[in-house]
Amino acid sequence: MAKRSLPLAKAYGLLEPGPVVLLTTSRRGQPNVMTMSWHTMLEFEPPLVGCVVSDRNHSFAALKATRACVINVPTAKLAKQVVGCGNTSGAKVDKFARFGLTPVPAAQVAAPLVAECYANLECRVADTRMVAKYCLFVLEVVQAWIDPALTNPRTMHHLGWGSFMLAGRRIRLPSKMR
Amino acid sequence: MAKRSLPLAKAYGLLEPGPVVLLTTSRRGQPNVMTMSWHTMLEFEPPLVGCVVSDRNHSFAALKATRACVINVPTAKLAKQVVGCGNTSGAKVDKFARFGLTPVPAAQVAAPLVAECYANLECRVADTRMVAKYCLFVLEVVQAWIDPALTNPRTMHHLGWGSFMLAGRRIRLPSKMR
Repeated sequence: MAKRSLPLAKAYGLLEPGPVVLLTTSRRGQPNVMTMSWHTMLEFEPPLVGCVVSDRNHSFAALKATRACVINVPTAKLAKQVVGCGNTSGAKVDKFARFGLTPVPAAQVAAPLVAECYANLECRVADTRMVAKYCLFVLEVVQAWIDPALTNPRTMHHLGWGSFMLAGRRIRLPSKMR
Repeated sequence: MAKRSLPLAKAYGLLEPGPVVLLTTSRRGQPNVMTMSWHTMLEFEPPLVGCVVSDRNHSFAALKATRACVINVPTAKLAKQVVGCGNTSGAKVDKFARFGLTPVPAAQVAAPLVAECYANLECRVADTRMVAKYCLFVLEVVQAWIDPALTNPRTMHHLGWGSFMLAGRRIRLPSKMR
């Protein structure tokens, strides 16, 4: 991979803008990947992420049992794969094979990175107290990877029913807001 | 206002893409507004939103005491106001006056809408059990408003330190994903 390690203190900048992500897990030797849009940063450092994984998703049991996952951030080049992964179940389909995605071993967790995504956040489950009521997992990012060549990634932002807003131009204003 | 009521079942589409929002509260007759990027949908209907309001923010006490707020969604036309509200404290500044924002009474909650924002979600605090540990409030959206004239709002998405990605073009793919 041409990716390099991203300091954990900068990980929030990948998720705070709200992109659709691919969440990968692995259980009993079977990797899986799901599409996810319901996530938020909870803390800068160590980076904590809250994300909703419905108990109707095949990934739910894997995430609960293994307490490990990777949050992979795709760009619009992967639009078909993102929608494909959202409309199929890992209970029936090997999504990596079906959608031509490449699993790469993570450095610190037992879940694969998606090579085609421009950034990958290796995570451990840090808190499951909100799972029963909201299917909300608190994840700690323990390792972050990024493709340094991509300075303005065209991330996808879900509006519902297959409609996505694509990341547009960037602006900068004087601000003390981290 | 030229805004119209948006069915609550459609409210998620406003927040799922991850825009920066302005959170308004009101306490003891004093309205306040803060800039917020850490939020996620938790449920479609009734719409539940998880959002982080730091206990260092002046809005924290108002939100906890009144259990009411409005999530207002700005476009890039309000970029200076968004950054201004993020870099000042309601403890010292009347931000509505300072930044030329117009408070409008909400229909169902005791917190003002920001008239200049293209969408407004009136919310009640539904669960405070994650506040002590994560400053994470669970809000229920009880009334939603939208400017129907704005079909592709140029929302702002925070990357950190005053850098924002602006909403770009939209694409649509066949999908069963709500």
